[in-house]
Amino acid sequence: MTSKPERNIYLKMKTLEEARQLWREASSSFLSPVETIPSGSALGRVLAQPIIATSSVPHYHGAAMDGIAVKAQNTFGASEVHPRRLMLGKTAFEVDTGDPLPQETDAVVMIEYVEPLGAGEVQIRSAAFPWQHVRKVGEDIVAGEMLLPQHHRIRPADIGALLAGGVHEVPVYARPRVWIQPTGTELVPASRAAEAAPGQIVEFNGTVLSGLVQECGGEGLLQEIVPDDYESIKQSLAKAVDSPTDVVLLNAGSSAGSEDYTAAIIEELGTVLVHGVTMMPGKPTILGVVKNKPVIGVPGYPVSAIMAFEQFVRPLLYSLQGVPCPSFPEMDAVLGRKMPSKLGMEEFVRVILGRVRGKLIAMPLQRGAGIITSLTRADGILQIPQELEGHEVEETVRVRLLRPREQLEHTVIMIGSHDNSIDLLANELKRLDSRLHLSSSNVGSLGGLMAIRRGQTHLAGSHLLDTETGEYNLSYIERYLKGTPLRLVQLAMRQQGLLVRPGNPKNIRGVEDLLRPDVNFINRQAGAGTRILLDYCLQQLKLSPEGIHGYEQEEFTHMAVAVNVLSGRADAGMAIYASARALHLDFIPIAEERYDLVIPETSWEDSKVQLLLDIIVSASFRKMVSDLGGYDVAASGTMRGVWDGKNWIHEVTRRKTKSHELD
Amino acid sequence: MTSKPERNIYLKMKTLEEARQLWREASSSFLSPVETIPSGSALGRVLAQPIIATSSVPHYHGAAMDGIAVKAQNTFGASEVHPRRLMLGKTAFEVDTGDPLPQETDAVVMIEYVEPLGAGEVQIRSAAFPWQHVRKVGEDIVAGEMLLPQHHRIRPADIGALLAGGVHEVPVYARPRVWIQPTGTELVPASRAAEAAPGQIVEFNGTVLSGLVQECGGEGLLQEIVPDDYESIKQSLAKAVDSPTDVVLLNAGSSAGSEDYTAAIIEELGTVLVHGVTMMPGKPTILGVVKNKPVIGVPGYPVSAIMAFEQFVRPLLYSLQGVPCPSFPEMDAVLGRKMPSKLGMEEFVRVILGRVRGKLIAMPLQRGAGIITSLTRADGILQIPQELEGHEVEETVRVRLLRPREQLEHTVIMIGSHDNSIDLLANELKRLDSRLHLSSSNVGSLGGLMAIRRGQTHLAGSHLLDTETGEYNLSYIERYLKGTPLRLVQLAMRQQGLLVRPGNPKNIRGVEDLLRPDVNFINRQAGAGTRILLDYCLQQLKLSPEGIHGYEQEEFTHMAVAVNVLSGRADAGMAIYASARALHLDFIPIAEERYDLVIPETSWEDSKVQLLLDIIVSASFRKMVSDLGGYDVAASGTMRGVWDGKNWIHEVTRRKTKSHELD
Repeated sequence: MTSKPERNIYLKMKTLEEARQLWREASSSFLSPVETIPSGSALGRVLAQPIIATSSVPHYHGAAMDGIAVKAQNTFGASEVHPRRLMLGKTAFEVDTGDPLPQETDAVVMIEYVEPLGAGEVQIRSAAFPWQHVRKVGEDIVAGEMLLPQHHRIRPADIGALLAGGVHEVPVYARPRVWIQPTGTELVPASRAAEAAPGQIVEFNGTVLSGLVQECGGEGLLQEIVPDDYESIKQSLAKAVDSPTDVVLLNAGSSAGSEDYTAAIIEELGTVLVHGVTMMPGKPTILGVVKNKPVIGVPGYPVSAIMAFEQFVRPLLYSLQGVPCPSFPEMDAVLGRKMPSKLGMEEFVRVILGRVRGKLIAMPLQRGAGIITSLTRADGILQIPQELEGHEVEETVRVRLLRPREQLEHTVIMIGSHDNSIDLLANELKRLDSRLHLSSSNVGSLGGLMAIRRGQTHLAGSHLLDTETGEYNLSYIERYLKGTPLRLVQLAMRQQGLLVRPGNPKNIRGVEDLLRPDVNFINRQAGAGTRILLDYCLQQLKLSPEGIHGYEQEEFTHMAVAVNVLSGRADAGMAIYASARALHLDFIPIAEERYDLVIPETSWEDSKVQLLLDIIVSASFRKMVSDLGGYDVAASGTMRGVWDGKNWIHEVTRRKTKSHELD
Repeated sequence: MTSKPERNIYLKMKTLEEARQLWREASSSFLSPVETIPSGSALGRVLAQPIIATSSVPHYHGAAMDGIAVKAQNTFGASEVHPRRLMLGKTAFEVDTGDPLPQETDAVVMIEYVEPLGAGEVQIRSAAFPWQHVRKVGEDIVAGEMLLPQHHRIRPADIGALLAGGVHEVPVYARPRVWIQPTGTELVPASRAAEAAPGQIVEFNGTVLSGLVQECGGEGLLQEIVPDDYESIKQSLAKAVDSPTDVVLLNAGSSAGSEDYTAAIIEELGTVLVHGVTMMPGKPTILGVVKNKPVIGVPGYPVSAIMAFEQFVRPLLYSLQGVPCPSFPEMDAVLGRKMPSKLGMEEFVRVILGRVRGKLIAMPLQRGAGIITSLTRADGILQIPQELEGHEVEETVRVRLLRPREQLEHTVIMIGSHDNSIDLLANELKRLDSRLHLSSSNVGSLGGLMAIRRGQTHLAGSHLLDTETGEYNLSYIERYLKGTPLRLVQLAMRQQGLLVRPGNPKNIRGVEDLLRPDVNFINRQAGAGTRILLDYCLQQLKLSPEGIHGYEQEEFTHMAVAVNVLSGRADAGMAIYASARALHLDFIPIAEERYDLVIPETSWEDSKVQLLLDIIVSASFRKMVSDLGGYDVAASGTMRGVWDGKNWIHEVTRRKTKSHELD
């Protein structure tokens, strides 16, 4: 441990606001170089100078209609009773829209009002006034006029004005060139991902950063991976600042860990302005300047990297191009869960968003900085200020939108138990209507019922076994959802069982084997239907869960249980067959259970929910679910109960298949 | 006239709604082909299939902190008083964030809590719980899970999830390839613009359309110009539909003019669905299908072309890519002028927008379909439904925004007289703060005072001569702005005079020569300060305007007057020196006049207005204005009067130059 350099403990950690302020001041002196490019290729670029038209548009007096060009004076007096005769080629000239007016003419008579008389003669029955239907020189653009101001970002119509106004080249700020340097001995390039050994990580942050740079109008220059040693990183940074780049990003190596050389290297070659920001994710961000070029140490975790980019690189790239940094769209939402947050830390929580009963609901996703899917699955980001210890459930909070505003109105929120068929449902919804989106949050069956009680979800997935009656969901709804009318629709019957490694090396035959001292178990969280089912099976066999090694180890999804078994961390876990099949594990069937959709009356008539119900009974969806393995879809779509908030109204109907529409 | 093909009179013209409906139905069968591309290059592309992860992330249990990896069980019982000793390499293993956990370990103790004892030993003073500070296999992504649904547009974070999840290639819809065919015998390519003769038009619509296609995620294939004859256009269309393109745009030739072959050719090779739409601009739009490819006849006027594109091509391009067409951002605004519109025509009026006294004001710009600057200068578009005969002044209307919403809050509205220095002012404002924008509408000095009275502008430019007193603006304000407190600030003194062609071929010496029978004059509109000045000069000389040829011919700007003289349409016009200089005309000085800014008290404290005032007194701005020629800026920024709504409070002060900030 002694051979490694001294550990940085973020002694000078800055708040997000301080860091942004320092960075803004430091960045104000940077500006992209100016380059001159053809106007036709200038879409999206920013003008470095005001642009003056060199030609007038039109540059001649032209006909604005099809018809005949005349001298207005020659037509005065023409009327219904006294039509005026004109000679083609002498006092009247055929013109089409855009044609130049012949000399000595100053008006156009529309073709509809011109009567051909033959022998080169026409007649008109009303007088033309001067300049009627004529596009005069300079009507649009006058040479010498300013066409577009400095700092203007060029849109398609602007290109038209430039070309029309005789401006064939424009001075624009160069696209900021961003040197992106992945560092890390453990990294393998994405192209060699298949060879990654344990401890090796596929490098993808560089490509993500490159995409982010592109979205801000810059150009990402992704470099080869450099190993995590002081000299290599130093050489790479020295090379970067001497190359024709405008910004340098050093990715990873910026934590306060023992491999953190980034800050020391920036300090050696230039100046570190900020080392560590009180934001989460994104704390180990470094901001510095080397040879008058901005250098940013971007954290290694993917969500941290993206947050650091948005806070520090994005504003810089816009400022380099001389345009204001567009602000993110925001909306008010009601928080669906209590959200504690660390005092003194600006936290960025990824949330799903959807409008339920008129309110926009925000439901937090996983918080880990390493969970990239917490961003890809998110609809928004909740920023919890460092002065707060978090937010209460049902508090109104401001969230930044990650999807277009209008799309939130087309989002179905599903909170509750996890099932692999939900992904298929989400995909079918989007396939049938690309505006629609299903956002789900896995909090277990009981969590789903609670969300319905609070009016925070369009529907929930539930498979809660009543261990007294052997029925599913009904008694739980009676207990927890008094006063909330709803309907219960069967999604599928599915096989639950024990997952074991291929070949079943521990020779596990049933639930009773879980008590063996040589068997490590992985459980689901309290309140999960699968856990209730396991407890029920144990109870039937009069076995106590206390003897099971790992009973207290909890996971939140079937797939997570399967992964624990696959990796050898556990010898067995209870989950649905589909998860065993996905990871090629052996499966010991224990029970068949019913998985239902719980749909409050308030969302029953919602067309999005109705489309979901149509999908459930479609032949194509049922085939896909069957193909996952372990599902019985014969009764999918059957109404299992109508709850008026007090009593069950007996009704068991089956939704009709609308295969002609959906398949 | 008889040799040309029969004229189309839009017999089957459709309303915008009908046309859009028909086109939506016809387009629903078109979809871009699917191609497989590297995930790293898929930014902005749309998935044609759901994507399933092939690797788990992490794919091993890894340390989430720097420290030592331990077996949690071995640490149970450790406490402040009973520290637990561990042997490095046996019961404790040094790990950095991201390192894989050594076999038989299941927790990480943070380095801060590890005390080195020397001789390969460390001690800890609290127990670790299992899986503490460990990133477990599949915590982010589990192999077999759906990563992203079909029809999803890929964002930077998604690329991270794809690469991390082992997905190195993705099936996406191909970018729609759009064949863009300019047609027109009168067209010259932009590259040869300098050679354009009268009657020839520089082709720029193709480049504009190409930019619009690019903004919708497509690829524009701009073709060589084809002459306006039936066979050439037909051959080009036949070639286009046989090429690997997805959409064909035929530009121009789509009016009902005599050169309109487009509809006939589409009909010969395929089917015309719509010929003519009751929208303005954009009426001569043709929608058709040839060999199962959508073919659009795009009108020739630039604004018409863009409107037709937005209504018909834009939705098509999104639908080809399987994603919903994003709607345009809209806001409510108060109309600053009566806006009549033709019944039965859906009209798209370009407006400037700015927030004045809390209200968003929309002031219409020129309406001509040929005026591309009406789009480049616009902040928004007002769509007047065909059922309406227009809107009244001060009516609240819905406008589509052409600039980001937030930018509207940074827009200064200036309505009134036109002066060439206003463009410089607009440019300086944007140069100093790229968020700021000055939108101006030229309605003459009196029009500006009226806009102030209605509270619809931040400031006005005015040079109204009181022919009784020889003073400027004061008496007009007394008459028209009773009850509206304001301040009057001098912008500049400027030279007014007669513009004549170089060399002064008609030998014009003064205002008296305007009455000569051989002199054609071009006038400014009633209410313009320049016209009042001319009338004053005539009156001084006891001359009647009735004898002036062209006195009733009106233009709205100095530059337009200059253009009329340059093109020979008039022999003389009255305007400021700067306009003569811009177009290299000769100038006969008549009078020096004062041009003031009229600033209501309600906008005086506005920081944008204050910045404008700072610019006016800056050395750099005054130099630029002087360089225009004909300006005297010595007293620029002098307060010419403070009006409390009833009386003038005597105050003539000069704003101090803040050159250190602005220059």
